[in-house]
Amino acid sequence: MSDGAPDAAFLNGQATRDAWLVDRGLHFGDGVFETISCRAGRPRFLKLHLERLMHGCRRLSLGAIDESGLRACIMQLAAEAGTCIVKVIVTRGHAVARGYAFTGDERPTQIVLRYPTSEAPAQNPLCVGISSMRLGENPLLAGLKHLNRLEQVLAQKQRQEQQLDELLMLSSSGKLVSGTMSNVFLVKDGRVLTPSLDMCGVAGIMRRVVLREAARAGMPCEERVLDHEDLQSATELFLSSSRLGVVSVADLEGHALRATDITRKIQQLIAPLLAGAVDE
Amino acid sequence: MSDGAPDAAFLNGQATRDAWLVDRGLHFGDGVFETISCRAGRPRFLKLHLERLMHGCRRLSLGAIDESGLRACIMQLAAEAGTCIVKVIVTRGHAVARGYAFTGDERPTQIVLRYPTSEAPAQNPLCVGISSMRLGENPLLAGLKHLNRLEQVLAQKQRQEQQLDELLMLSSSGKLVSGTMSNVFLVKDGRVLTPSLDMCGVAGIMRRVVLREAARAGMPCEERVLDHEDLQSATELFLSSSRLGVVSVADLEGHALRATDITRKIQQLIAPLLAGAVDE
Repeated sequence: MSDGAPDAAFLNGQATRDAWLVDRGLHFGDGVFETISCRAGRPRFLKLHLERLMHGCRRLSLGAIDESGLRACIMQLAAEAGTCIVKVIVTRGHAVARGYAFTGDERPTQIVLRYPTSEAPAQNPLCVGISSMRLGENPLLAGLKHLNRLEQVLAQKQRQEQQLDELLMLSSSGKLVSGTMSNVFLVKDGRVLTPSLDMCGVAGIMRRVVLREAARAGMPCEERVLDHEDLQSATELFLSSSRLGVVSVADLEGHALRATDITRKIQQLIAPLLAGAVDE
Repeated sequence: MSDGAPDAAFLNGQATRDAWLVDRGLHFGDGVFETISCRAGRPRFLKLHLERLMHGCRRLSLGAIDESGLRACIMQLAAEAGTCIVKVIVTRGHAVARGYAFTGDERPTQIVLRYPTSEAPAQNPLCVGISSMRLGENPLLAGLKHLNRLEQVLAQKQRQEQQLDELLMLSSSGKLVSGTMSNVFLVKDGRVLTPSLDMCGVAGIMRRVVLREAARAGMPCEERVLDHEDLQSATELFLSSSRLGVVSVADLEGHALRATDITRKIQQLIAPLLAGAVDE
């Protein structure tokens, strides 16, 4: 089913020769992305973001990426702004052949976008629900921040309708996975637990930082297969994201929760990393 | 997390103001598509393709679509070429806000592409395997021809490596779904069966035509939840796609199968529709 390039195209009713119309990122969500929080002109956790990006490109067998070129663009956009968000998108590039199959001759499209943001977002404890939509399971895509995000788009719509700060999501087989735009941690019997992401979900950078800093501080903290029951028996809950850092959950489906020493200890551990915009 | 539009961008290392870089089709695969086979200057099953496209747009709550404008573009591109494939992509459009959530103020991006094709593809019986990759389940997305197609991209890679014509796919819970780029039918006890698509898979136009024509001809034919065992006990198998029509499977994982009267009857039923390029 490989029939080469299109010989004619319309965009919103107008004839066009725009080359981006054949990008496999658009056609299939065939690529990965990163959302990097920048403070004081420096991209936070840049090394970790680029590491995950390159890992994703390898997992999807994308072609050669100009990593140093990408880093330079990110650094320049961050330096020119005080506080901002830099989003990186890497797709497999323009289709060489029609259809799902790739040939290996595609050259990746590398996009870097800067979004102005006023200042650090509020860190108030969150009101959280559980989405009625479950996430599809696929170990080959699990953990990747790939461009197939319709599940998150639909879950966000549900979150808005319910006027909640975030919705937690279970997988189709009933395992706890994450929030729609965050990772989740729960505290149970004095241990910090976060869902394994072998079947679905995005392995967040802040999640990784939390796991690492907790381990360094000697706090019991681990990835584990968790379900709805674990969630209900948790004594505290917190969410992590590159944008928000670590934020405690005050209310889960109408049940009040409160941050104890453990969540606060985690927040204290990562606070210098968030504030200092360490280039790591 | 809505921070508006980007204020700077790089595309492959070059500063740019290209507007398409904020399209939600690219960022999230937030949209749907159709692949329409055109013969003798006419798009085959255009009415059914547009019906499915509009249904997908409604299911994803995309904004207003200019359906008659789309139809005109498709008709024009098909008329100018003899045999071709016209692909339609409709995305939610440029992002109004950053992040997964949509505001409802987005205006859909409507793309129509024409791919030249030489003539009708070969109709030789196919050698087919079963993919080791399973499809994630999500009833909210099931049946839609949406732009989140990384599973198909990866499955096609596997198909190429195995040098097979097609791979059949099971869902994460072990149900038979479809091929990577086709729908599947099996014949068992004289009945024609095709997998229900309530949990995943694409509800193909040719699949719909086969079900309709079989029903009209009084042949026992139904959608049903099917698994690997049903596949193994099938006496014959055939695949359907807009491009290929109905093609019988000659070999499933090394086991020879042959088309009997039933597959041939189905092929005879749809042959006039395929040849005549009926505008339906």
